[in-house]
Amino acid sequence: MKTIIIMGVPGCGKTSVLELAIKKLKNKYKIVNYGTLMFEILKTKKLVKTRDEMRKLNEKIQSNAQKQTAEKIKKLAKKQNIIIDTHCSIQTKNSYLIGLPENILKILNPDQIILVESSPKEIFDRRAKDETRVRDNDSVEKINFQQEINRTIALSFCVLTKALFCIVENKTGHLMKSSNDLMELLK
Amino acid sequence: MKTIIIMGVPGCGKTSVLELAIKKLKNKYKIVNYGTLMFEILKTKKLVKTRDEMRKLNEKIQSNAQKQTAEKIKKLAKKQNIIIDTHCSIQTKNSYLIGLPENILKILNPDQIILVESSPKEIFDRRAKDETRVRDNDSVEKINFQQEINRTIALSFCVLTKALFCIVENKTGHLMKSSNDLMELLK
Amino acid sequence: MKTIIIMGVPGCGKTSVLELAIKKLKNKYKIVNYGTLMFEILKTKKLVKTRDEMRKLNEKIQSNAQKQTAEKIKKLAKKQNIIIDTHCSIQTKNSYLIGLPENILKILNPDQIILVESSPKEIFDRRAKDETRVRDNDSVEKINFQQEINRTIALSFCVLTKALFCIVENKTGHLMKSSNDLMELLK
Repeated sequence: MKTIIIMGVPGCGKTSVLELAIKKLKNKYKIVNYGTLMFEILKTKKLVKTRDEMRKLNEKIQSNAQKQTAEKIKKLAKKQNIIIDTHCSIQTKNSYLIGLPENILKILNPDQIILVESSPKEIFDRRAKDETRVRDNDSVEKINFQQEINRTIALSFCVLTKALFCIVENKTGHLMKSSNDLMELLK
Repeated sequence: MKTIIIMGVPGCGKTSVLELAIKKLKNKYKIVNYGTLMFEILKTKKLVKTRDEMRKLNEKIQSNAQKQTAEKIKKLAKKQNIIIDTHCSIQTKNSYLIGLPENILKILNPDQIILVESSPKEIFDRRAKDETRVRDNDSVEKINFQQEINRTIALSFCVLTKALFCIVENKTGHLMKSSNDLMELLK
Repeated sequence: MKTIIIMGVPGCGKTSVLELAIKKLKNKYKIVNYGTLMFEILKTKKLVKTRDEMRKLNEKIQSNAQKQTAEKIKKLAKKQNIIIDTHCSIQTKNSYLIGLPENILKILNPDQIILVESSPKEIFDRRAKDETRVRDNDSVEKINFQQEINRTIALSFCVLTKALFCIVENKTGHLMKSSNDLMELLK
C-alpha cells in the first residue's frame, strides 16, 4: 500500500492533471483532500459550519484537528493506496504557513511527495481567467517565489520522511503529457 | 505570548528596520539578541571576557551555553512577547554554520520566523560604506549565495517548528516602508 | 575525531578532487564509500551478488542495511577521521531519492557536510566524454536542477545535525585549486 502526497500552488493545474491520471489508473488510488477531510471532522464535532471558520479556530483546536485528520488518513492507507491532495504552504500577504508540520508528516509517513509546477506566467494567466474562485492577484514574481519556497519545503518533508521527491511540469496545452508523467510516477 | 525570530545577513538593515518597527509598537515586544545574551551567560560564569573568545571555546561548552541561552529566552517568553535577533547562518570563508540547530529551535518554539532581505548589490554597498564594523569584503555573488541558503535554512526551521515563514524586503531609501511591512507582521 | 560527508552529482569531479586533497593530507582521513560498504555488508550476508541487485531488495532489508552501514561507519569514526563519500540524492527520471534519511544522518552525526559543485555545462561535457560509465544523458537544465535540490537537501541535513555546510567549486582545468579549497576545509 502506498501513501502519496501531491501539492502545488493554486493555478498549477494539480486537480486537472491528477483527475486525468487517476482516470487512467482506474481505482488504483483513493484521493483524499486534506482540507476537506479536516473540515468534515470539525463539522461533525460542531466546531465549525463553514470552511472559512476553520482558520479562526484557536491554534490548539486546529492543531488537534490536523492530527486527527492525519490519523484518519493513515487508517485508510492501511487498506488502499492513498493520494493526499494538500498545500505545501499557505500564503497570506508576506507570510507562508507550512502545510504539513513535522508531527503530521511523520504520522502520514508518505512514500512519495509530488509537486505539480507550471511556469509562473502561465499560473498568473490561469488565475486571471478563473472567475469561479476568489484568488489574490499575485504578481508573476510572487508566484515564482511561492513555487521556489514550496520546492524547498517539499524537499525538507522528504528528508524527514524518506519520501521520494517528484516533480510534474504542467505546461498549458499539454495536459495529456502532464497526466502521463504523473501516471508514470503513480505506477 | 508570541516568540518571533528575526534574521538577516550583515548589511541587510535588520537592526534599523526592527528598531523603527518596535518604536511604533511601543513596548509590545522585548528584543533579545541571542549572541549578546549568550555572551553575558558565559561572562557571568567567567568562561570568557570578550565576545571573540566565545568562538574559541570548546564545542561542548558552546553547545551548553547555546542551550542555556535558549532556555532563558523561553522563560522570558512566558511573560512577554519576544523578538529574538540572531543569525540564520554564520559564514567563514566557504563554510556556513547553521545559526540555530534543531534542539535549540525546539526549545525556542517560535511562532514566526522573519527574514530581512535586501538586494545583494545594496548589501555590498552598505558594507563598503560601513566604517564602524570590520566586515569581510564578500562579492555580490557571495552575498547572494548566503541570502539564498538562509532562505532554505529558515524554511527548514519552519518545517521543524510550525513557525510562520515571513520575508521583509528592505530597499535602500525605503526604510519607512520596510518597517511598516515588519510592523504588519508583528501585529 | 572528525566525521565528514562529501557529496556531489555524477560528473562534478568529486573523486578526483577528493583523492588529490587526501594525498596532500597523508593519512589524516580514511575515505569510506557508503554504497560500497553497504554492498559488502549485504554480500557477506549473501543477500546480493552484484551492486545492481541492491536496489531490487525489499525496502525493509535496504533500510536495515543502510542502518548497519551507518553504525559500522560510526564505529570506525571513533578511532580515526572519516570522510564518507555518498550521494545527496539519487535520480531516476523525474524522481529523487534522498541519499541519507534523518535516522541515518543522526547515527553518522557529521561535523561537516561538503558539496562539490561544477557548472552544469561542464558536468554535461564531462559526462559526454566519460566512456567508462553508463550515465543518463541528462540535459544541462536537469543537471542544474539536481545540483539545486542537492544544496537544499544538504542544508536540511545540516539543520538536523548541526554540521558545517561547505561548498567546493570544481572548475574544469582548475583541479589543483579545487583540491586546495577542499584541503582547507579538511584541515
